[in-house]
Amino acid sequence: MKQILLCELNMSEGTDKEKIEAVSGELRNTEGITIIDIDSDKDHNRTVYTWIGEPECVLRGAVNISSKALELINMAEHKGSHPRMGAIDVVPFVPVRNVSKEEALVIAERYGGWLGSVGVPVYYYEEAAKRPERESLVAIRKGQYEALPEKMKDEFWRPDEGPFSFVPRSGATVTGVRFPLVAFNVNLRTDELEIAREIATRMRFSSGGLRFVRAIGLPLEEKRMVQVSMNLTNYEKTPIPVVYNLIKTLAESYGVTIAEAELVGPVPMAALQDVVRTCLQVHKFEIDQIIESHLLG
Amino acid sequence: MKQILLCELNMSEGTDKEKIEAVSGELRNTEGITIIDIDSDKDHNRTVYTWIGEPECVLRGAVNISSKALELINMAEHKGSHPRMGAIDVVPFVPVRNVSKEEALVIAERYGGWLGSVGVPVYYYEEAAKRPERESLVAIRKGQYEALPEKMKDEFWRPDEGPFSFVPRSGATVTGVRFPLVAFNVNLRTDELEIAREIATRMRFSSGGLRFVRAIGLPLEEKRMVQVSMNLTNYEKTPIPVVYNLIKTLAESYGVTIAEAELVGPVPMAALQDVVRTCLQVHKFEIDQIIESHLLG
Repeated sequence: MKQILLCELNMSEGTDKEKIEAVSGELRNTEGITIIDIDSDKDHNRTVYTWIGEPECVLRGAVNISSKALELINMAEHKGSHPRMGAIDVVPFVPVRNVSKEEALVIAERYGGWLGSVGVPVYYYEEAAKRPERESLVAIRKGQYEALPEKMKDEFWRPDEGPFSFVPRSGATVTGVRFPLVAFNVNLRTDELEIAREIATRMRFSSGGLRFVRAIGLPLEEKRMVQVSMNLTNYEKTPIPVVYNLIKTLAESYGVTIAEAELVGPVPMAALQDVVRTCLQVHKFEIDQIIESHLLG
Repeated sequence: MKQILLCELNMSEGTDKEKIEAVSGELRNTEGITIIDIDSDKDHNRTVYTWIGEPECVLRGAVNISSKALELINMAEHKGSHPRMGAIDVVPFVPVRNVSKEEALVIAERYGGWLGSVGVPVYYYEEAAKRPERESLVAIRKGQYEALPEKMKDEFWRPDEGPFSFVPRSGATVTGVRFPLVAFNVNLRTDELEIAREIATRMRFSSGGLRFVRAIGLPLEEKRMVQVSMNLTNYEKTPIPVVYNLIKTLAESYGVTIAEAELVGPVPMAALQDVVRTCLQVHKFEIDQIIESHLLG
């Protein structure tokens, strides 16, 4: 069975079209990968590249992009509204199909090792973290690029790869392995923000909810509704229909119904297996029954 | 966007391994197609070939298989428990992805035209039927191979392609276009067959139910349950969750619950779109959001 790995490379350049085009060209010229998305944001001054393919090809894409980006981007001059600490800021590798966590970790560490070898300080995060306090991107990136000179004086922030010193031009890079995120939002037929917030509190892991759910309550002013906005960080262990059914029940306890739900962005085919199993009671449904699966090798 | 057509060729030979292998080889040597299944049944004395690919390649596969099968099979000697009337018995072409009904019809008619040109009487059925009384395979195949000599004397049974005379060696072939069938069975927590039968009556089109549902009630003796066994003949217009929800409600009216449901065999990816939309209320879900879609071109 063919393996599919996904890489989502966050680069700190979102305004200079020539530079973005030069870097994008490196990805387009990488063999054996399929580009899913190239998304530049001017305010963030950031471009997110997303591509998939066999693990070796995906790794080659990351190296090709990074070489060019490190050549063109000088972090000492970078300004943008999105938190960042490096020219190549964050590079998660995401197993999509027939790739084990261990296989993805090997790829992430080969990428991190290469970055270190060309002089970029590298931190491993999420599943690739070498210490628990480096699992969270937010923790590693705290203070952003501007905090790096100070951090680099502290043994606690010794990088996992590359030099233990501040590199003004490249900054530092965070890479690692994470499961595919499923962004799942549920809109409630009420404008009482408090209800969305209370449900979000019940749903999310950090306050007693489901193990792989992050959730916040938000107002949707134009729609005069509120939203429970969630990230599902492991759809195998906390499947979408489990989240949906719990939130539906919680909403009922406030006399509120779900107006609509949203799956935002890409969803791995495997995440739909549990939707069919739970929602239609087809407990033996296998994703390989999908005709198109045969074309994926 | 790449087009995917499926072909399911039913050949009247399921016992002679050498012949089956020779025919299978023709399919394996066809470029640009992916074989999904080759299923021989000795009692039926029948082999069903299922493959997918771009329409032109799928057509070539059908022609390649048929040439070899017509060379090797003599219907005058054929015995088997499955209804049949030709060496190449039934050949539905099924649009799976980005193929319109019209495009599939062109392929079916090129195949039928070719079969006719090599001397096989051909009837078009389902979406390809030239007259309403030829829509149903059962109607065309009534009396099977043995009835053909008599049929061929009747102007009513003039074939759509090929000679208007009985051809003892090949018999006649039925080809055409149909939508992907979704085989959906629902097991009820009761052993009262009458309940399954009554629900099947309510569900199926022919007795007042949903437009694209065929249904019967069956006993599941080992499980001490009963089953409503259904074929959904157009999952776009009569989506799986609509069928599921109606049957669930009907079962409730007998105080019976659904124990489990089954999706039997291959399911097109597009059939899952409505599952996500209806069951999770994600009404804007698009099948292109599935990451693997990008690899299908």
